[in-house]
Amino acid sequence: MDSPPVTPPACPFEKRFPSQLLRDDTFFMSLAYNQAIDAWRQDEVPIGCVIALDGEVIGSAHNTVESAHDPTAHAEMLAITQAASHLGNWRLENATLYVTKEPCPMCSGATLMSRVKRVCYAVPDPKMGCLGGATNLNDLPRVNHHLELTAGGVLETECRELLQAFFKLKRAEQA
Amino acid sequence: MDSPPVTPPACPFEKRFPSQLLRDDTFFMSLAYNQAIDAWRQDEVPIGCVIALDGEVIGSAHNTVESAHDPTAHAEMLAITQAASHLGNWRLENATLYVTKEPCPMCSGATLMSRVKRVCYAVPDPKMGCLGGATNLNDLPRVNHHLELTAGGVLETECRELLQAFFKLKRAEQA
Repeated sequence: MDSPPVTPPACPFEKRFPSQLLRDDTFFMSLAYNQAIDAWRQDEVPIGCVIALDGEVIGSAHNTVESAHDPTAHAEMLAITQAASHLGNWRLENATLYVTKEPCPMCSGATLMSRVKRVCYAVPDPKMGCLGGATNLNDLPRVNHHLELTAGGVLETECRELLQAFFKLKRAEQA
Repeated sequence: MDSPPVTPPACPFEKRFPSQLLRDDTFFMSLAYNQAIDAWRQDEVPIGCVIALDGEVIGSAHNTVESAHDPTAHAEMLAITQAASHLGNWRLENATLYVTKEPCPMCSGATLMSRVKRVCYAVPDPKMGCLGGATNLNDLPRVNHHLELTAGGVLETECRELLQAFFKLKRAEQA
């Protein structure tokens, strides 16, 4: 007999509806947060990313590692690919990347390779983060691009609570 | 008047034809080298990557950053996505990744995230390499996977000559 289909746990958090009139860091991080909610609803680790240029969104994605069976399908990677495709140019100069958690080793590297101007992340990650947490790839002296960093502070509590609640549920499922 | 079409410079190096009977590091690195030749023929930076599992190739790619307009389209990233798609599983446990140059910050991170067992690279890169060159992400204490590393020595001279000749030509074009 087949096992019953697995229903992803309902996400107890609601999306945010920021005003379109003030396009500040909180506005764009709210959109990244909404991507993270969408990730949870698909039973993916709730991390979201948005890339903005001149006040417009040019890339927006969430983690799809499990559904895509792809270890490279992190929110940041997908948003970077989208943004570069939109511009028709792999150099994302002057763009800002917003992400709900400090990028992992791979995604930290990708922010450097894509030459975004600034990275703004909500939740620092001392274990895996490579833009100030576990290490800072932005400090490698001979890498030919350096980022401006906004490390924590923008919707940090909201993004952390979302992640912590998801992992708490996952641990309970496995217990 | 339109500019004349740009013809990629002919690649003066030949592909390798290793025996299929001995599936050692030199065999798989030869296939990665052949991918790098294909990259050059498309006017892309000549770096190639092959992923092997149980003596079979499960991923094989070269850099396509320029043609794909995608800063994430490095050889390693594409080969990892291919291999995971082939297996239907994002965890590439027990696989070995062969690449003609030490992975950059992004790709070094991707080898960790994909959980390959071993990385074998031909040419060390003290400027951008993050598996021993500029830094070693494999040494981050709290990352939950560590790689076996074969750092240099396998077709190192051949892979270095290919890269150096390509960049020499590019500099001459720009002069």
